[in-house]
Amino acid sequence: MTAPAPTLSATLELACDLIRRPSVTPVDEGCQELMIRRLQALGFQIEPMRIEEVDNFWASHGEQQGPVLCFAGHTDVVPTGPLQAWQHQPFDAQIDEHGMLCGRGAADMKGSLAAMIIAVERFIADHPKHKGRIAFLITSDEEGPAQHGTKAVVERLAARGERLDWCIVGEPSSTSLVGDVVKNGRRGSLGAKLTVRGVQGHVAYPHLAKNPIHLAAPALAELAAEHWDDGNDFFPPTSFQVSNLNAGTGATNVIPGELQAVFNFRFSTESTVEGLQHRVNQILDKHGLDYHVEWALSGLPFLTEPGALLDAVAASVKAVTGRETTPSTSGGTSDGRFIATLGTQVVELGPVNATIHQINERVLASDLDVLTDIYYQTLVKLLA
Amino acid sequence: MTAPAPTLSATLELACDLIRRPSVTPVDEGCQELMIRRLQALGFQIEPMRIEEVDNFWASHGEQQGPVLCFAGHTDVVPTGPLQAWQHQPFDAQIDEHGMLCGRGAADMKGSLAAMIIAVERFIADHPKHKGRIAFLITSDEEGPAQHGTKAVVERLAARGERLDWCIVGEPSSTSLVGDVVKNGRRGSLGAKLTVRGVQGHVAYPHLAKNPIHLAAPALAELAAEHWDDGNDFFPPTSFQVSNLNAGTGATNVIPGELQAVFNFRFSTESTVEGLQHRVNQILDKHGLDYHVEWALSGLPFLTEPGALLDAVAASVKAVTGRETTPSTSGGTSDGRFIATLGTQVVELGPVNATIHQINERVLASDLDVLTDIYYQTLVKLLA
Repeated sequence: MTAPAPTLSATLELACDLIRRPSVTPVDEGCQELMIRRLQALGFQIEPMRIEEVDNFWASHGEQQGPVLCFAGHTDVVPTGPLQAWQHQPFDAQIDEHGMLCGRGAADMKGSLAAMIIAVERFIADHPKHKGRIAFLITSDEEGPAQHGTKAVVERLAARGERLDWCIVGEPSSTSLVGDVVKNGRRGSLGAKLTVRGVQGHVAYPHLAKNPIHLAAPALAELAAEHWDDGNDFFPPTSFQVSNLNAGTGATNVIPGELQAVFNFRFSTESTVEGLQHRVNQILDKHGLDYHVEWALSGLPFLTEPGALLDAVAASVKAVTGRETTPSTSGGTSDGRFIATLGTQVVELGPVNATIHQINERVLASDLDVLTDIYYQTLVKLLA
Repeated sequence: MTAPAPTLSATLELACDLIRRPSVTPVDEGCQELMIRRLQALGFQIEPMRIEEVDNFWASHGEQQGPVLCFAGHTDVVPTGPLQAWQHQPFDAQIDEHGMLCGRGAADMKGSLAAMIIAVERFIADHPKHKGRIAFLITSDEEGPAQHGTKAVVERLAARGERLDWCIVGEPSSTSLVGDVVKNGRRGSLGAKLTVRGVQGHVAYPHLAKNPIHLAAPALAELAAEHWDDGNDFFPPTSFQVSNLNAGTGATNVIPGELQAVFNFRFSTESTVEGLQHRVNQILDKHGLDYHVEWALSGLPFLTEPGALLDAVAASVKAVTGRETTPSTSGGTSDGRFIATLGTQVVELGPVNATIHQINERVLASDLDVLTDIYYQTLVKLLA
């Protein structure tokens, strides 16, 4: 258990440098400066875009003609939780006796950022006159509100007509072995806060009250049992989950006046926002509820169908690891949803996600070198 | 709006003296001492029973032979709430321009206590050699936990074989005119805290979690819709109410691991505790829930069927007010449930309950004189 020695690969050295900067959202702590210096040395044009309290940058290398391949990611990490629970301190970036690189951001996603930089350095060294352009879109707010990060940068790029053909987001997509899964889309996410109104009263005089728990229960049961769609070749069926349910004053002899439920749809391209809202309202109306729903759309679904990018990534995974990668649209949302609005083919490809957002986040150190090779091969296939 | 003048009736004078003592549960503030002095002057034997932090007393007058009529009540009051919201300060005991005696305890139940004392004073003056015995059972914890009040006193009386034929509890039973309703029983109260266990997880991966809200909703809907019994001539049907329902971590993307529901039965003599528990378990089992129920029995139902006491009370109300009183078992629980366990006929008869436990609690001052006459007439009918 010693600090990483000078025998580390270039990717691991950079990954450790990044992890040692405690960049909890939205703080960047100089991570982007580290990346920018490396990219400047390669001849990248750098465009910092600090928006409100969030550091972002856009960088590109190559000529205006030809396709654009963008690497996207975030330098911010989620909070550590209790430090005493960590086996190795989260910002120490130690490699343990099992060869695991330990630290907050090792998997999500400073390891990927390091792999991208090293892959691009090698590719430009080998192919100084590569086709088209290589770009970077990096933010320090992906884990937080994500309003002044990739979303805002994409709006600026769109406003000036920036073209972006392909994008690889470094999110940890792999399930058990690096490269085994690549995300080629994400479900949409539609949140809502439902308020059901009743009439408060004393438990002993129920005829003078209207219990919103009793009124809402059959409607909630029906919403939970509803089959929203069948999904399709690329998406699992739309799912509905109530995350929070609250009613009551705390007193055991008072019928509450109101019930609140927070729920969320993860929806496939077979459903629309309007369609889901309409069906929820229909069920609530059918049960005669006096209610109000406050909707919040977090992201529309997006899909990258098989094509140049997905083919190149799959072939690279196969060439480097011997594995067939599985395209998947499962899991949570990511910044890919914003980039996809530019008409870009977007995939997410990164290390194994088993420990992300957890105490003792870690990744097999050698996987980051494998990931570097996969990114390099993809560059070769698309821009050599 | 002046302080009560010397022209007040004896009942109102004593009621004001009691109200001016801020005896918020479990504090008695000398109220019982005031009552005890009056009863001692009449020749009552006094037995103070302080139990833990609660003042109680038992007092009796008369001979061992013959029937025992007990007046029961409490000197404690519920908290005032914000003082600035009161039109007349809650412990000032003022009579307003509408002839209302205003103050905390005016209706619940210092007015009744004063009426009992004055009625007994007059009755003993008129009938020094009355039949049987007159008793008082007074506590300073009816509005609180009620563990060391009437319940504990009754246990001591039962242990020594004390006989108690009839009991009038001074709870404010009247609905719009004094004496219009007399409570001749109360429903039972059975509480429960239900925990439904699921498996916590991420909203985006519902197949890895089990949402206890989704699992519990159909069972709660069925419990809310269940018909528990038809009631009977004396009781309304048993009612079920969920007072509190909580699940969720606060985060909108987490499926909670557990749901908690607090519910309460107000039950008639047509249902039993065991029967209700069994039927709840049956419904929860039917829905395949992993659950735990923590039951808490607050009180068994009791009933005083038409007989000597109810007849005497009804005839007294009629004689004094010209009204037909209506026996009722509706409303919350009271200390009557403990006294009924002695095999006693128990009724509750007191002033109008419209403002109890509220800001600006008040009672028509003249109603307390009417109540004094009703108690007096009841004494005459049963013990003259």
